[in-house]
Amino acid sequence: MRVLSGVQPSGRLHIGNYFGAIRQFVRLQDEHDCYYFLADLHALTTVHDAEAMRENTRHLAAGFLALGIDPGRAVVYRQSDVPEVTELAWYLSTVTGMGLLQRCHSYKDKTAQGIVPSHGLFAYPVLMAADILIVDAELVPVGKDQKQHLEVTRDVAQAFHTTYGEEVFTLPDPLILEEVAVVPGVDGRKMSKSYGNTIEIFGPEKAIRKRIMSIVTDSTPVEEPKPRDGSALYALLRLFAPEGDREWIERAFDEGGTGYGEMKKRLFAYFLETFGAARARYEELMADPAELDGILERGAARAREAVAPLMDRVRRAVGIA
Amino acid sequence: MRVLSGVQPSGRLHIGNYFGAIRQFVRLQDEHDCYYFLADLHALTTVHDAEAMRENTRHLAAGFLALGIDPGRAVVYRQSDVPEVTELAWYLSTVTGMGLLQRCHSYKDKTAQGIVPSHGLFAYPVLMAADILIVDAELVPVGKDQKQHLEVTRDVAQAFHTTYGEEVFTLPDPLILEEVAVVPGVDGRKMSKSYGNTIEIFGPEKAIRKRIMSIVTDSTPVEEPKPRDGSALYALLRLFAPEGDREWIERAFDEGGTGYGEMKKRLFAYFLETFGAARARYEELMADPAELDGILERGAARAREAVAPLMDRVRRAVGIA
Repeated sequence: MRVLSGVQPSGRLHIGNYFGAIRQFVRLQDEHDCYYFLADLHALTTVHDAEAMRENTRHLAAGFLALGIDPGRAVVYRQSDVPEVTELAWYLSTVTGMGLLQRCHSYKDKTAQGIVPSHGLFAYPVLMAADILIVDAELVPVGKDQKQHLEVTRDVAQAFHTTYGEEVFTLPDPLILEEVAVVPGVDGRKMSKSYGNTIEIFGPEKAIRKRIMSIVTDSTPVEEPKPRDGSALYALLRLFAPEGDREWIERAFDEGGTGYGEMKKRLFAYFLETFGAARARYEELMADPAELDGILERGAARAREAVAPLMDRVRRAVGIA
Repeated sequence: MRVLSGVQPSGRLHIGNYFGAIRQFVRLQDEHDCYYFLADLHALTTVHDAEAMRENTRHLAAGFLALGIDPGRAVVYRQSDVPEVTELAWYLSTVTGMGLLQRCHSYKDKTAQGIVPSHGLFAYPVLMAADILIVDAELVPVGKDQKQHLEVTRDVAQAFHTTYGEEVFTLPDPLILEEVAVVPGVDGRKMSKSYGNTIEIFGPEKAIRKRIMSIVTDSTPVEEPKPRDGSALYALLRLFAPEGDREWIERAFDEGGTGYGEMKKRLFAYFLETFGAARARYEELMADPAELDGILERGAARAREAVAPLMDRVRRAVGIA
């Protein structure tokens, strides 16, 4: 099946991104025909700084590859390298009712967060529909909170079919990811860039160590048993620990005698075990811009080749060219 | 100066289009560097029929050329042949406040006319801004009722400059057309496709004759003087009549003795004098699809070449590629 997903280059990759999405993307490559894109056009709705955009994009591309997304199997491309997507978004706009967009959560949520209510933010679901429909995606990995976007995409595609009396699009289905861990941030809330509570994957080792040591814990004395419920540290240890260490974690919490500081050191060691190779590969990729550029160029060429038949169908259906 | 204007291929060219816009476009070619485009992407907000779109577009292209727009001087192109325009529209969307679009008349007016409130209709001013800014237009011919659109374009360009701290766009000025006649339709209201009161330029001769003979007049008897005020027939005769015939018209109305039927026959004769050569050229162009295609292809190539430097500046400013 053809799978599509995108990640916005709007910040630094953190372990929430990995356990919540990228780990699954890597696995999906074994079974599916995967399209993974760097959603730079979407990121422009919140990042209005050229230097940051360029850095974020290189960072995300290198991160994707370092974490196991394989450009030999998946098609990895920058959204802006496939300009047909904005053309398709226009065609979709002409059949998308305003009411549909007005009901979308993402716009309401983002403006509630204080982001300036721009037209880009409002039009976001149409561009997202274009991203998905343009590659004839059959499955789109989604978390529960993203289900609405996929429904909007299906609604938009169906509106086009009804308007033009022709079935040009593949209607995508959600691929509800299994084993998506809810990853707590260092403050105990869900890990999210907007909360400023993330642990970066590719940051400097010292900073990450410091960050892990700053995970909020309660004041249970070293010798006493420690509560697991609501403990971010417990959840993170469980996420990272190799099978054989699970028992150690349970005992450390249940029996007392192990301080939070010691547990955090252990977590940091797990972090390095998990991401050490990826971090090294990331450094190599960042040090070789030509390699990264070449990979993205080849990905763009493959993506543009893939979207050409769909764009032909759409243009014919609307009477353009 | 660089001048840009576009016409939507959303129907048949009528004499209101000619006296209200195209005649001026032809004159502007003598003094300016003109870009004239067939606004097919805009037309998709109201025309959802592929066959009609294709026909309207060929009709408009042939009509433009037949009426004197000269692809040797002006750049004549189809909007959809310059896909960069939708890419630019996205960049502009990310800096365009929702309030700005909500205040636009065009959306309110069109939905008030019963057109389904689609996102395309709402986003129309952003695409229009992209059309104008992408060619670095300095002047945009406008009627009074279109002034707001140009102000929106300037606002959007300035929002981009403010956001990115870089002046990438040329701010266009309105070119208020002189000698723009208000052309009445056959029912006396302003000639407009939406009123169904037009006189087509390139329709079959018989149908046009019938149409002209159907112009609404009052019941003043042949022998009596006829009121000029509010007379569509008088206004149309004035519009078409050669200098030397002006006096005849005045006398025909003031002195009585000339029936409306006779006046209408005279108007039809003027129509054929004015548009006879254009109608013949139109038929030639429509009979030679390869010539028309070639002209549009060359126009598209020139337009894409012209927009490339601006697109480079914009992409660099936002941090894409």
